[in-house]
Parts: sequence; C-alpha cells; structure tokens
Amino acid sequence: MQNYQKLEARFRKINRLSDLARIAGWDEAVVMPEGASTYRNESLAELGVVIQELSSEPQMGQWIEAAEREDMSQWQRANLREIKRIYVENTAIPPELNQRLTIARMNCEQQWRVLRAANDWNSFRPYLQEVLNLAREVTAILAKQNNLSMYDAASNMYSPGLSTVAIDGLFGELKSFLPEMIQSVVRKQKSEKCIVPEGLFPMSSQKALGLELMEAVGFSFKNGRLDESHHPFCGGTPRDVRITTRYNENEFLSSLMGVLHETGHALYEQHLPEDWLTQPVGAACGMSIHESQSLFMEMQVCRSRDFLSFAAPLIRKHMLPLTRNPESLETENLVRLVSRVKPGFIRVDADEVTYPCHIILRFEIERDLLEDRWPLSELPAVWNEKMKSYLGLSTLGDDKNGCMQDVHWPSGSFGYFPAYTFGAVIAAQLFEKMQKDLPAVRSDIASGKFESLREWLNEKIWSQGARLSTTETVTRAAGPLTAQPFRRHLKSRYL
Amino acid sequence: MQNYQKLEARFRKINRLSDLARIAGWDEAVVMPEGASTYRNESLAELGVVIQELSSEPQMGQWIEAAEREDMSQWQRANLREIKRIYVENTAIPPELNQRLTIARMNCEQQWRVLRAANDWNSFRPYLQEVLNLAREVTAILAKQNNLSMYDAASNMYSPGLSTVAIDGLFGELKSFLPEMIQSVVRKQKSEKCIVPEGLFPMSSQKALGLELMEAVGFSFKNGRLDESHHPFCGGTPRDVRITTRYNENEFLSSLMGVLHETGHALYEQHLPEDWLTQPVGAACGMSIHESQSLFMEMQVCRSRDFLSFAAPLIRKHMLPLTRNPESLETENLVRLVSRVKPGFIRVDADEVTYPCHIILRFEIERDLLEDRWPLSELPAVWNEKMKSYLGLSTLGDDKNGCMQDVHWPSGSFGYFPAYTFGAVIAAQLFEKMQKDLPAVRSDIASGKFESLREWLNEKIWSQGARLSTTETVTRAAGPLTAQPFRRHLKSRYL
Repeated sequence: MQNYQKLEARFRKINRLSDLARIAGWDEAVVMPEGASTYRNESLAELGVVIQELSSEPQMGQWIEAAEREDMSQWQRANLREIKRIYVENTAIPPELNQRLTIARMNCEQQWRVLRAANDWNSFRPYLQEVLNLAREVTAILAKQNNLSMYDAASNMYSPGLSTVAIDGLFGELKSFLPEMIQSVVRKQKSEKCIVPEGLFPMSSQKALGLELMEAVGFSFKNGRLDESHHPFCGGTPRDVRITTRYNENEFLSSLMGVLHETGHALYEQHLPEDWLTQPVGAACGMSIHESQSLFMEMQVCRSRDFLSFAAPLIRKHMLPLTRNPESLETENLVRLVSRVKPGFIRVDADEVTYPCHIILRFEIERDLLEDRWPLSELPAVWNEKMKSYLGLSTLGDDKNGCMQDVHWPSGSFGYFPAYTFGAVIAAQLFEKMQKDLPAVRSDIASGKFESLREWLNEKIWSQGARLSTTETVTRAAGPLTAQPFRRHLKSRYL
Repeated sequence: MQNYQKLEARFRKINRLSDLARIAGWDEAVVMPEGASTYRNESLAELGVVIQELSSEPQMGQWIEAAEREDMSQWQRANLREIKRIYVENTAIPPELNQRLTIARMNCEQQWRVLRAANDWNSFRPYLQEVLNLAREVTAILAKQNNLSMYDAASNMYSPGLSTVAIDGLFGELKSFLPEMIQSVVRKQKSEKCIVPEGLFPMSSQKALGLELMEAVGFSFKNGRLDESHHPFCGGTPRDVRITTRYNENEFLSSLMGVLHETGHALYEQHLPEDWLTQPVGAACGMSIHESQSLFMEMQVCRSRDFLSFAAPLIRKHMLPLTRNPESLETENLVRLVSRVKPGFIRVDADEVTYPCHIILRFEIERDLLEDRWPLSELPAVWNEKMKSYLGLSTLGDDKNGCMQDVHWPSGSFGYFPAYTFGAVIAAQLFEKMQKDLPAVRSDIASGKFESLREWLNEKIWSQGARLSTTETVTRAAGPLTAQPFRRHLKSRYL
C-alpha cells in the first residue's frame, strides 16, 4: 500500500493547511477589521496556491494509478476514489482557464451587487454571459474526463453521484403535487389566527436562548462556537465548528430557527468519523446530504409541535419578560408562527412548501443554460413564465426579485441548487424511517431528549463521511430515495 | 536587481503565509474552543514546515550572494541585510538540533507549569539543564556564523545589534543609582495618602472606557481590535492588530494601563511603512524598540499627571456610578494610584522603578549561564544573592517566586530580558527629546490631543521599520542611547 500511503500523507498535509484557511475565512466574516481585507485576500490566495500545488503534482497521478492495484480496506478504497475525484478536478482544468473563470466571477459578483440593486438586467447580462461561457468550458472538460453529461458533471461537484435523471425524477414527483398543495395550504391558513410576538428582544437574550437550545439538541461547545455575521453560515473545521447567525431585535423566531438550522450542519461536522478527519473520505458527503442534516434539525425536528412543546417553556423563560403580548408565546401559536406558507419572489425567504418550486425553476433553467438550449437574453422571460406556472407570481420587469436574486450563477456555481431540495426531501425520508426504527423518538423530542435521535443519525449518516455517494448514503439509511415521505410530511403538517 | 527581486517575491509569499499563522495564533488565544487544540497545533506546525522550507531553500543563499553585488536603494539594502540575517538563522542550525531543542522546550515548559506551583527546583533543574545545553549549542553556531560573542548572538535574535557591551554600560548606569533611589521613593510614599477605588466594575464598563481611551490616543479600529485573553498580548498583523487584556471586576486601573500599554505596541505596528509591509525591513525593529513604544505610551504618557487630568473625566464618566468612594477617582489620587512603588518578588507585577532590577539580575545570570561560568545547580543561590543586593528581598527556599517565576528560560529564550529595560530607557529618552522638539506636547496630552505626538513618533520610529539597528534607531531619533533621561524621569515623577 505504499502508493496509497503516500496519498494519505499528502492529503493529511493539505487538510491541515486547509483548516487554517477555514478559520481565516470565519475570522474574515466575524471579527476581521475592514482595513485588513485586501491583505487577508492576498494571504488566502497565497495559501490557495500552496494547497493547489500540493494537490495537483503530476507524481500524484502516478501514485493514484499504482494505488488502484494495491490491496486495501473498503474505507481506504473509498478514500482513494475521493482522492482521484479531487485530483481530476484539480488537474483537468488548464490553470489559465481557471484563472479566467476566477476573474470573470469576481467581476460578475461585483457588478451583481450594484446592478441587482438597480434592477439593471441589460447591463448585467454580458458579465453573466462571460461567466456562463467559461463555466461551460470547465464543465465540458470535467464531463469528458468523468464520462458524464454536462449537467451531471456540474452536479457532481456539489453532490457526488447525483445525476440529472435522478433530479428529473424527483422534481417530476414534486411538480405533480406541489402547485396544487400550495393553493390548498394558503386557503387553509387564511382563517388561522396567528399572533406575532411584539417587543424588543435584545441580542443577548436571543443568544442565551439559542445557546440553550443548541446545547439541548447536542451541539458540543468543546468543539464549536456561536457568533454573529452578516450572512449566517456553518464554517470552521470538524473539531472547531463555527456557526453564525444575525439578530433582529424586533423578531426572534427567524434567528432562532436559523441557529437550529446551522446546528444541524454543525452536528454532522462534529460527528464525522474521527479516524478519517484528515482524509477526503472523512469529509461530509456533498451538499445534498449536508443540507438534509440542517433541514432535518430545522424542518423535521425544530418546527414540529413536539419540539415546540419542549422549547416553549425555554422560549418563555427568556422572552416572556420582553413580550407585550404574552399569548403569542403559547405553544400552539408558536407552532402556527413557524409554519406559515406564502408564495413569494425570494428563495431565501421561502417556507418549506414553496421552496422546492424556487429550486425546480432554477434547475430547469441552469441545465438549459449549461447545454446552451436558448440564449441568455431570454432568461428574464423564461424565469417569469416558470414563476407564474409554479407559484402564480409574475417577475416581469422585476429582475432584481427575479433572475438576478441569487449569487450562485454570478459566482459560477451551476449545479448547486438541487442540493437544497434534495436536502429537504432526504430529511423527510430520514425522519420517517427514524420513527419506524425508534417509535419513541417523537415523545423523546417532546421531552427534550435527543440522544437516541443523535445515535441514529450518527450511525446512518454522520459516521459515514463521504464513503458512499449521495444516493447510496440515503439508500443505506432509509431505502431508495423518494419524494413520498416529503409529500406525507407536508400534508400532515400543513393540511 | 533580478536576484534581489527574487528574494522580495519569496519574502512576500512567506509574509502572506505568516500572517495567517498570526491570525490563527490570536484565534487560539481568544476564541478557539478547547477541543480544537491538538488539531490547531498540527495545522500551525504544518504551515511552519511550509514557511521553513520557503525560507531556507539553498538557492536563496545564491540569490543573496548575487544580490549583494546588485545596485539598489538604501531601503532595499537594509531589506537585503534583514533577509540575510533571517536566512542565516534559518539555515545555520541543523534541523535535527532545532527539533531536539523544540522537544526539550516543550517538555520543560510543561514541567515548569507543574513544578513551579510545587516550588520544586530539584525536579525542575534537569529539564532546564537540557534546554540550556541545547540553547547553548544553537547560540554557539549563530555566534560563529555572525562572528559574535555568545551573549551578543543571543541578544541579536531579539534586539538586532544590541551588544553585551552596550547592555553592560547601560545597566551599569542604572545600578549606580537605582537601589538607593528605590529606598528614597518607598520612604517618600509611606506618608502619601492613596485611596483605592472600591466597587464592582463590570467587564463591559471597563471595556467601554478602554475603547474610548484607545480611540483618543489614535488606535485605528479600521485596522485592529480589542479582545480578552488569559495573557494580554499584541498580536495579529500590521493592518489587523489584535490587542488583548484581561479584566478583574474588583479593580479597573491595572487592566486599563495594560490596554494602553498594548496600544503603544499596536500604534507602532499600525504605522509600519506601508510600502515595505511584506518585507523583513518593514517589520518592527526588534523587541527593545517595540517595548519602548508600549512603555512610551504607558509609562511616559498615560501614567503622567498630564494624561490623567485629561482621562480622569472619562474615567469618572464610566466608573463613578460604580464606585463606593468617589474621592478615589479624583485626578491627584489617580496619579498616586498609578505610581506606587514597592519592591516585590515578581517581575510582571513590578512598578517602573524596581523593574530594571529584575531585568539586570536576569541579564547577569543568563549571560553567565550561556557562557557556562557556573553550574545551573547554583542558580537559586545566585538569584537570592542578587535579589538581596538589588531589591533587599530574600528568595531562599522560595524558588517559585524566585528563579522559577518566568517562562522565558524554560522556553529557551535566553537574551530576551534586556529588551524590557532598554524599552523603558529608550522611551524616557524619546519623550525627553520629543518635549524639546514639541514644546506644547505635554499641554496637548492634557487636552487629549495626540496628533503631534503621533506624527513625531511616526517620523522618528514607526515609519523606519527595521531599516536601522536598535541603537542606530535611537540615535537617529534622540541622540546616543543613555540612561540619564530615564533617571531624570524617575526623579521627577517619584522624588
């Protein structure tokens, strides 16, 4: 196994250096003074060069080839597969093309910030066109190298093994019932009485409540922190997980649900397999599974009546003295507050029933764009048509809240979006299976007991790292991937 | 200049990577959760290897040799000199010797934490002996390479160009008047009425006061932060200066003076020459000059009656509502509080009059130890004798508060100590010269105006980086180094 061992040593080194980049990334978002920005970017770029050199040296190709003939365990074999995938991604693209894409992305993101605010699609289009052209070139190379279709190659970068066929199938299921279901839910909720808590909720009280619930569900503060940043995220490293939130002192439930969402990501990272942490196979299994863990915690657990009946007393402990309308903090009202459904223009503000429509629309569009099925100039019109058809809303002349709302495409991320909805669907399937395996789990949640839930997720998902592909991971845990548990979940919660 | 340019490019790269290590170091001390410790150390060690490889490649020796024959500016010439010094330090020591020293230091520091608390010199001695032996080997190599005496080579690592002759001369001046002066000051202060503020001073109030005074003297929060850590320090990078303090809620003046001390370090870092920040010549000029800047701010400026007459209203704004004895916050009482003198065992708790005695004692001992003039077993006896002679205190049987009190020797830092007292002496000399150049500076300080003070320090010290040696820097700013301004300062403040 000497060639394989050389690869492990190399990736241990890469991993240690990458960990520093991750901490510096957290630092930049959370504590760095603004005057350090240019210098920090230069430092991170320099470390990026070191890491890129370490992970693309030609001799590694020889080690990989030789290692494939060596005897090894199942985990080592899976690690070798991940190493090879990373090596191909790092070496297949000519550095000059990568550099052109980086520059085009930076320009496009910069323009996006200004031109989105100005709702100026026509000025923005050439920048996006440039990114799209170069992303296509890159994707075409990866498609050829891995013997995949264009969109499969794009998707593979974010959710290993997730194919267009699988996406099409699942999204087809969702499209068959979602638009009608949304109408029914909206009709039903019209008559529901829902009281918004009124008062000023200082950051310190919101943070204290968040920390208490993080602790309750099992976040390890020995290996992580909660801080504030402009855009919430889960960063850091598996033994040093840094989650962030932002606070609005007029409303505390959004931030609280955000904290619990990131806690779902964090629990996954904190339970990745200890023995493999320095290797690619010890990392999380792509973005679909990662999102399934945050949405499991947020949507399946924390927005449920069971969880809220446990959390309501804690919420009242921190918030009742600050609330002008105490009845708003009663459990049933909290349940209604965290399950309001309303079709809207903006994906990141969407509830769990309408969210998949935002994603399906983007998937269909980005697949067409990568495969060059129609010119980019038609994007606003196509967007508008799909929004009308899936959510009954028109974005005509409102590109700011239409096709210009996300940073993903300006930053060259084509193929990422399906991960959000795969995450939601997988979360529902896992929770349904968990209830079969652990009949007491819902009453455990209602009593604030999360050990058995964590043990189950650990055995099924967390401890597996990137050993299996996205769909294999789901199948091992809960059978073949299907949208039906998600449909049943929505029906039971909202209808 | 092509060889010189290659060296600049190399050091730009090294600097960018080192900046990340500095930020990760701050992170470790201030925010890192404890469970990440092992991983963080591995990451920092890995980056250390990368940096060590980049700064010791044999071809750099050829570049340096060739560059010395190239035409260049004065700053470039000084940069080349610093580059050569670093390269020699990095390559002269066999890696195997360096590694043995690192292991010996780590063992010794670990034992020190336990055995100091237990006051167990006999068990500690073999660990310190091992560090001393290896430090001697390393110093001997550097001495030979640089054609210096043993102690000069040791001192050169911390305060470039500071020779044993210069140290002996200055410390001789100090010894001629300090022991007697200490007695006089103690006698004089016996009859002084000094009221200690009583109350509970929450961290948030102390921090608000500290931030306000940092801002007043010119700390740039666009390029720096104030945080809390177990041991106060000034870390980060010149464009991202991270100072820390610790708070005792029963007493606020120590932390406040600590914050202003670190602010002195920070102002130096924040004003290092922009054009040379990525190069060795753009760094601070060694530890003596660095300490002169923190002591300038703390001892010359902030503990003065002028400064306190400006600061007292701000102190009262934050602290009066929390203080049971309001008269303790009157300016004259504050002046007395921050200038109490009392001979004691512990260096880090010492006032500015007794501090140099602690340093002279350590210098005389570490010079003898490096030159092997007597066996290490005699250290407690020698320490005791010198403490009796300089400060009138016996440490017999109390090695915990005697020769075991500092981490410097266990961690292999022989030759560092003189920097503290050189800093104090240089600070006094600079302030005396500044008053000649800027006759209004003391009344400016009393009015909370610090621009002209900053401009003067910037022109004389900050903007010069490491262009000149320690003594050259002082001479350029304020004439040949002498202890007389320090003597006059102590006399005027304390007698």
